[in-house]
Amino acid sequence: MSGRAGRILRRLRALAEAGPDPRGGVSRPGFSPAHARAVLLAARWMRDAGLEVSADAVGNLYGVWRPRGADASGPVLLAGSHLDTVPNGGRFDGALGVVAAIDALAALVQRGALTRPTGVVAFVEEEGTVSTTGCVGSRFAAGQLELAAVRSLRDPDGRPLGERIDTFLEVLRREVGLASGRGPRVRGYLELHVEQGPVLDREGVTVAAVEAVVGIAHADVRFEGAANHAGTTPMDARRDALWGGAEFALACRRLGLDRSGRAVVTNGLIGVEPGATNVVPGACTVRVEVRAPTSREMDEVRRAVEAAARGAAGHHRLEATVSGWQEIAPQALDPGVQAAVREAARELGLPCKIMPSWAGHDAAPMAAAAPAGMLFVPSVGGISHAPGEYTRPEHVAAGVEVLEAALARLDRALP
Amino acid sequence: MSGRAGRILRRLRALAEAGPDPRGGVSRPGFSPAHARAVLLAARWMRDAGLEVSADAVGNLYGVWRPRGADASGPVLLAGSHLDTVPNGGRFDGALGVVAAIDALAALVQRGALTRPTGVVAFVEEEGTVSTTGCVGSRFAAGQLELAAVRSLRDPDGRPLGERIDTFLEVLRREVGLASGRGPRVRGYLELHVEQGPVLDREGVTVAAVEAVVGIAHADVRFEGAANHAGTTPMDARRDALWGGAEFALACRRLGLDRSGRAVVTNGLIGVEPGATNVVPGACTVRVEVRAPTSREMDEVRRAVEAAARGAAGHHRLEATVSGWQEIAPQALDPGVQAAVREAARELGLPCKIMPSWAGHDAAPMAAAAPAGMLFVPSVGGISHAPGEYTRPEHVAAGVEVLEAALARLDRALP
Repeated sequence: MSGRAGRILRRLRALAEAGPDPRGGVSRPGFSPAHARAVLLAARWMRDAGLEVSADAVGNLYGVWRPRGADASGPVLLAGSHLDTVPNGGRFDGALGVVAAIDALAALVQRGALTRPTGVVAFVEEEGTVSTTGCVGSRFAAGQLELAAVRSLRDPDGRPLGERIDTFLEVLRREVGLASGRGPRVRGYLELHVEQGPVLDREGVTVAAVEAVVGIAHADVRFEGAANHAGTTPMDARRDALWGGAEFALACRRLGLDRSGRAVVTNGLIGVEPGATNVVPGACTVRVEVRAPTSREMDEVRRAVEAAARGAAGHHRLEATVSGWQEIAPQALDPGVQAAVREAARELGLPCKIMPSWAGHDAAPMAAAAPAGMLFVPSVGGISHAPGEYTRPEHVAAGVEVLEAALARLDRALP
Repeated sequence: MSGRAGRILRRLRALAEAGPDPRGGVSRPGFSPAHARAVLLAARWMRDAGLEVSADAVGNLYGVWRPRGADASGPVLLAGSHLDTVPNGGRFDGALGVVAAIDALAALVQRGALTRPTGVVAFVEEEGTVSTTGCVGSRFAAGQLELAAVRSLRDPDGRPLGERIDTFLEVLRREVGLASGRGPRVRGYLELHVEQGPVLDREGVTVAAVEAVVGIAHADVRFEGAANHAGTTPMDARRDALWGGAEFALACRRLGLDRSGRAVVTNGLIGVEPGATNVVPGACTVRVEVRAPTSREMDEVRRAVEAAARGAAGHHRLEATVSGWQEIAPQALDPGVQAAVREAARELGLPCKIMPSWAGHDAAPMAAAAPAGMLFVPSVGGISHAPGEYTRPEHVAAGVEVLEAALARLDRALP
């Protein structure tokens, strides 16, 4: 293990001590005492790297280096990720991006490689565990959410999120300067993250430059037939709504397989009514979720899903209605930032794949405010959001080196 | 409408006044005040027909005619059904069999056609609405359930059924003599019932002699794969348990269709775990219910269901476990009673079909104690257990005439 990977892994272990879960993973819900402890650790490491540390009004933590002279007050190129976790999650998700960014920036500062303001950010509440909506900190930083809107989000107890934020900031205040508004103006954003899927691990590729964060749309498909006696209704007289739901689920599988690598289709929920052993289901509702990296592909898959629902209904004399589509649009990432990652990998002699991110990330809202990009390192077995989440030391080292080299390029390349 | 059909339909209307449901049907749960009112009405009609009325220790109502002389104390040939209903049920289910039996027996008595003891019975709690187990009254009458066992069944409030029975008997006591044990010894049993399915209505046949009451078996089939992130897990890396459940449900449909008229297979419940929009289902549980008229067919279909579960699991890299089989065995009905029904229909010039009963009935437990049979009349559209349950007046008339003629045959034919 390189000295660098060892240093980063020790810091990830230290962070995992904030919020250890008895089931073996890490539980660090946004704004929790464990989350605050993790943020204070990161603030200390930022200061040790010579960065100026502050937090904004929702608790996003910034550590910034500024050159002397004319560029000192300019907008900042940021690297980072988030420090909150899902319940019983892994120690790499989010935390790796923050720790690696501190390490890369420390190295860049030390060797005098930077000409313009550059910093590290640790966003809050990326996972949406306490607000039921994700990327809260980055959406605030990107200007997509106003402070009042963040504070009035409801926590799982139905209380305004502002109460949790105030408690969190009160803990931070002991060691970190608090700002009343947003953090620094942003010139660009680059996020290192574990892939959370098996693609790089299966293909044996060390890093990926992320082309887009996929869009996510979901809806409910309801099949309606006729509830009936499970004994006296002959098979050929039934309008069993589950038959439509079952055929639809298999059609969604086929749709996703046929677009392998460009879309996924998931049915995470299914139910029948009235729901009794001896009653033929009169209604069946199936949740469908679609993800794809471009708006064109999102539209195509959504239309194919609706056609599959109509087809399944038609085969079994049912009615199908598709309702409640909600969509987070796909977010293309900046081609210039992608190029910087690819060139940094090439310079280091590392194979680099181009792929979409199939999960949401802070880079998506940031991309709407400034040139933004991501790089992925492999997750062994694709495991994430679980105690078994793991990235090999050599991939951690490769990730931080590509991050550092890409930041050096962006320091000069970005306007 | 014949005078006879009119008389029977008026009595069914009078019974429907006991327990009218605001949703349009009849709600007469076993042992409820409405059920007691219906039983008292039937008791009055039995007395008007010259029958000797009594109730046994669980509230089954008997009206018996006995000849003078040597046969007066012999076992009784019974016709009847039940007077309780499902919530918001129809006015024909059960009630028709009791009212028609009173009418047939009154005619037989009046024209001096009987030589041996003959009676009408109205069983309690056939539907199982308050005991979660059906045919309670007939199982007691047939000696399959002891009084203490009936009284200790639990009602929906978790109280012993004995409390409801005592309240019910207290109301009956005002007009009916109560016996402390079972009712009369039984020589034979014949039950007229609405089909509750669409077969006779579709085929334009007026009556059916029932060959058997089908067995009913149910189990849970659980498919296990791997819960995973609905974005980052590529389609071809998924072990989505719903894919197994969906394929299994369609295989059950195919099994039932391939054995049309000899088996039905129903999946009335399905669920996935963990059950979230953005998580690939790691487990899927499907309830399966099988009905068939013979033990051989029950076994064949159960084996085919288990093979279908293994096949679906194998196709999607899942594990399948089938657990908790519970079975009520099929009950063949007496060939002699069937023959009496067929010959009675032929004598009246009515087409008669031979078919199984796809629902449970009091005739099934009675068949274990004495020669027993059933005859069906058509249900329009197969609707039952619903306010729209309906049998045409001409079919009501045909049913009571076949019942009367068959009872006259059985009076002499049964040992």
